[in-house]
Amino acid sequence: MSRIQSIVITPIAFRDPPLLNVYGVHEAWALRTIIELKTEDGQYGLGESYGDEQTISQLRQVAPHLEGMDVFNMNAIRQKIEEVITLPDPDSGLDIAPGTLGATTVPRIFSAFEVACLDVMGKITGRPVCDLLGGKVRDEVAYSAYLFYKFERHGFTDDPWVDKWGEAVTPAQIVDQARAMIDQYGFQSIKLKAGVFEPEEEIQALEALRDAFPNLPLRIDPNGGWTVETTKRLLDKFGNGLLQYLEDPAHGKEAMSQVSAMTDIPLATNMYVIGFFDLPKAIELDSVQVILSDHHYWGGLKATQELAKICKTWDMGLSMHSNSHLGISLMAMTHAAAAIENLTYACDTHYPWQEEEVIKGGKIQFKDGAVVVPDRPGLGVELDHEALAVLAENYKNCGIRARDDVSEMRKYQPDWKGTVPRF
Amino acid sequence: MSRIQSIVITPIAFRDPPLLNVYGVHEAWALRTIIELKTEDGQYGLGESYGDEQTISQLRQVAPHLEGMDVFNMNAIRQKIEEVITLPDPDSGLDIAPGTLGATTVPRIFSAFEVACLDVMGKITGRPVCDLLGGKVRDEVAYSAYLFYKFERHGFTDDPWVDKWGEAVTPAQIVDQARAMIDQYGFQSIKLKAGVFEPEEEIQALEALRDAFPNLPLRIDPNGGWTVETTKRLLDKFGNGLLQYLEDPAHGKEAMSQVSAMTDIPLATNMYVIGFFDLPKAIELDSVQVILSDHHYWGGLKATQELAKICKTWDMGLSMHSNSHLGISLMAMTHAAAAIENLTYACDTHYPWQEEEVIKGGKIQFKDGAVVVPDRPGLGVELDHEALAVLAENYKNCGIRARDDVSEMRKYQPDWKGTVPRF
Repeated sequence: MSRIQSIVITPIAFRDPPLLNVYGVHEAWALRTIIELKTEDGQYGLGESYGDEQTISQLRQVAPHLEGMDVFNMNAIRQKIEEVITLPDPDSGLDIAPGTLGATTVPRIFSAFEVACLDVMGKITGRPVCDLLGGKVRDEVAYSAYLFYKFERHGFTDDPWVDKWGEAVTPAQIVDQARAMIDQYGFQSIKLKAGVFEPEEEIQALEALRDAFPNLPLRIDPNGGWTVETTKRLLDKFGNGLLQYLEDPAHGKEAMSQVSAMTDIPLATNMYVIGFFDLPKAIELDSVQVILSDHHYWGGLKATQELAKICKTWDMGLSMHSNSHLGISLMAMTHAAAAIENLTYACDTHYPWQEEEVIKGGKIQFKDGAVVVPDRPGLGVELDHEALAVLAENYKNCGIRARDDVSEMRKYQPDWKGTVPRF
Repeated sequence: MSRIQSIVITPIAFRDPPLLNVYGVHEAWALRTIIELKTEDGQYGLGESYGDEQTISQLRQVAPHLEGMDVFNMNAIRQKIEEVITLPDPDSGLDIAPGTLGATTVPRIFSAFEVACLDVMGKITGRPVCDLLGGKVRDEVAYSAYLFYKFERHGFTDDPWVDKWGEAVTPAQIVDQARAMIDQYGFQSIKLKAGVFEPEEEIQALEALRDAFPNLPLRIDPNGGWTVETTKRLLDKFGNGLLQYLEDPAHGKEAMSQVSAMTDIPLATNMYVIGFFDLPKAIELDSVQVILSDHHYWGGLKATQELAKICKTWDMGLSMHSNSHLGISLMAMTHAAAAIENLTYACDTHYPWQEEEVIKGGKIQFKDGAVVVPDRPGLGVELDHEALAVLAENYKNCGIRARDDVSEMRKYQPDWKGTVPRF
């Protein structure tokens, strides 16, 4: 037995550039939570999760119940979470479909603790986390350049902070952004977050990227921002192998299924298949051909492997979604991807957009767009408590308590709706 | 790294009673293979698999390629097996459907080594195997009484050996068999292997069991021996909750699907969904509601967990199939079942039908029909080399090289067909 002695949950905030998407624009601070899990035998493990108030309160509610439990018994830990967690009010608007509150909440909360437990288990056994997942099948995990339309700076804050990336609202600026990011990180594939401008304008950016980087696979993600009709109109322009996959063009499993029937371009999603409960219907409808996994909401690294087996069984591709995150999440993603044979697409990551870190040694280095899978026990990262204190102070002072791209956009454009489909 | 230094593969044979099924009758000896895997750091792990010549030759072909590999990297071990294994000739008759040879062979061979690696990993980390599978959710794993029609003794051998169970060809004898087995093992549910006599006769046995053991759930398994029409005729007799589930009544996914549409009784299978490749079609057809897993051919203990996740996702039940086996397999089954929350049915086991063992301490004890999940590192069993030598000698002398119930039955009944459906 290696019993959990204490769990420290620290909300943090770090700088986030004004990145645009179909819902609106990123606020000046992104939120996360850092989990430090200590065991009676003197080990500690790290987790990183969402930083919204709901997640923080659920993590805090659950944590004391896990004290005394064995870090190796993650099945018992999940059962305990299911048993004790208070689900949000079904009328809160957080229920994506009747009865899914538990199906979405428990995996999200469990995941944060699972990663921390795996980190401890790795330290106890002297093994990197990927070994606890069956062993790595690759020595490095490829990530994709994740391009965003963006403002030059946040317009509605007295804060003097300006990110280093500059404005990107034209095809030429998107190519410049890609070049800067690829020069620094070496990414071998490119994703453009879309749904911001008229689709034809965004396709011009995509074509400019293809001309500038003819050998790099491209992806575009309008976050369900297009109608089926609009998507149909655009499909011809995506022909000739312009796209590696088309992410969430239309809104909902049915709309995706209609698009899917019109094209051979693989459709990917991180929006309409967000948990195991979504799979039967999506498979029945053939809504998507690539699932974008995310251990933060699929229920952890082992659940991601189970999803991978399902993708393999039903002949679907598998890639990885990201939100704004720091290095603990990046390492968890890297260990999971290393241990999944059929995770063959480069994973998404927002990591280049963040300048801060909570881990010792600062930002994790990329080589040729990839992160080397560490051989060190556990996740292979250590917490920098000074950096954590700074980011925790940010959280206290930043005033943001839940991500809200829609309201932020209304500061620029008061009649902004932020609804999909938009075009 | 904990590198594999050597692998010893020992075919064994042990006594098997003349158990009847739709194909024919068990021969006088059952075959298995024992795998001893030793690592450079002085640990050893055990596996148990099939004992037919094909499996033995594939295990032996693969084993030298695994030397030097890290026991913790099972993903790499599986890739290595895929790479080096010689698949049987597609014309050998072993291909259950075009293209499935690799899909059925690799999981079967990998599984034998996976269990041995998990045993080593458990010893290295000081953890029972169930902890390496995410931790146990139950302290004991329930098994079912597995009743067989049987002859009193093997009729066509000069061997004086006679099993202790006696003849069972009438309902009263089946009830006697059940009583003897339940008295000794404490089983809380009952499965009757059927497809041997006219279905109505077998249902009389089932009804006699219900009368004798009114509180124990019942199952019947004719191994696909009934036509859809016959099954339809019988369904009414299974009403009133007589059956917990109906195992493989009709032959093939389509026939099972037709039966499924006629009844609310859950249909189970270990015959028509035997690997991940079978799942999409079976789910599309709603052929079965309960999958009988078997780590020996599904690809190991972790694959069994992945299957469990699929069962949970598609709202199917999960139970466990067995062949004639000894204690290493029983312990592997027990650790897997302990770590799978939705493995809620009592598992099948042939274990009471075997008198011999290869593990120290002899036969594993049951309490109230269940096996206690051991807390010892690894599988929790040690190899008895003296016993192994005796059983290996049996293998050399028994003359059987592959199970063949059909030919054995022809010794009693020369015109025996052994084909399904039979009734």
